[in-house]
Amino acid sequence: MNGQYPSLLLEKAVGEFAKLPGIGRKSAMRLVLYLLRQDTAAVEAFGEAIVTLKREVKYCKVCHNISDTDVCGICSNPRRDASTICVVESIRDVMAVEATQQYFGVYHVLGGVISPMDGIGPDDLQIDSLVQRVEQGGIAEVVLALSSTMEGDTTNFFIYRLLEHTGVKVSIIARGISVGDELEYADEVTLGRSIVNRTRFTGPA
Amino acid sequence: MNGQYPSLLLEKAVGEFAKLPGIGRKSAMRLVLYLLRQDTAAVEAFGEAIVTLKREVKYCKVCHNISDTDVCGICSNPRRDASTICVVESIRDVMAVEATQQYFGVYHVLGGVISPMDGIGPDDLQIDSLVQRVEQGGIAEVVLALSSTMEGDTTNFFIYRLLEHTGVKVSIIARGISVGDELEYADEVTLGRSIVNRTRFTGPA
Repeated sequence: MNGQYPSLLLEKAVGEFAKLPGIGRKSAMRLVLYLLRQDTAAVEAFGEAIVTLKREVKYCKVCHNISDTDVCGICSNPRRDASTICVVESIRDVMAVEATQQYFGVYHVLGGVISPMDGIGPDDLQIDSLVQRVEQGGIAEVVLALSSTMEGDTTNFFIYRLLEHTGVKVSIIARGISVGDELEYADEVTLGRSIVNRTRFTGPA
Repeated sequence: MNGQYPSLLLEKAVGEFAKLPGIGRKSAMRLVLYLLRQDTAAVEAFGEAIVTLKREVKYCKVCHNISDTDVCGICSNPRRDASTICVVESIRDVMAVEATQQYFGVYHVLGGVISPMDGIGPDDLQIDSLVQRVEQGGIAEVVLALSSTMEGDTTNFFIYRLLEHTGVKVSIIARGISVGDELEYADEVTLGRSIVNRTRFTGPA
């Protein structure tokens, strides 16, 4: 017995799974034993999918979204409005905005937000390339869609200042009461913002 | 865009992770993006650990526990009592019993329990090989340590009948109130069993 594991190979595989966020050693063991019960081809497909992704993944030259091609499917789509850029933190946020089917412009993936606590400064993010995109012209609006946190707010302001000289319209996604939420459970900052930023009521949506 | 995924490679990797038990597509996406942020060597180590385990894993010829060698470290350990066999469902149960540091015999891993609902019959389990081990002689006691479920009980009884002719002592792990549990929250079957199977009190443990 090596520690409590009957096999070094098992221990190694469990250790690799346990490195993943939110997966402890017990869950890791469960996942590894599940994979062991599958046939070899299925396990190889699993191992190869992630290694191939890591080796062959590309990031769009324009918006830095993940892509199989040099320019991603959104940036190269002629039906998307290339004059509107939505600035997001991550690929997951692109997918979240896309899922709303309410946005028809293009994106710019920063790769995070400015966070001195985590040692992430402007140079670690795709901020320079955003400013260059705007300076090259043809951009009418930049929509800031970052997290509503201190770091997100800092990054919003930082980008706003860098874009000021270009005269481009900079907007920010609305903060307010979530659809379906009851007022009494909303925090006061959100509720306050939703009152300040109230919009004209034009009948039921 | 392929569906909502910006990359086919990404979609494939997420799909593989989402096949794992208890991992949905959102968690899978989170895990894949986490791995993408690691360096290539780390991702390859992850992929290889599981594929190598699957390819090279051995099961102990004697007890069917997972092992790096033909006979596992427990079966080949001269300090273990080879005349006592603890029958468990899975490798995880071996690890659980080992963690108690209260058992010094050897094991027999069935690979599951008899479950007609799941299409698992006696022939799908390592029951024949258990009977053979006992028939070969040198075994004083077989300790049944299966789940306390209908399937576990059925399997216990099935094994008991098959071993009856050998005259070996067959015992079963105690069912009772968990250490630290309050009586009022114990279910009545467990409480009833703990009364029927009461043991002589010999002072604080």
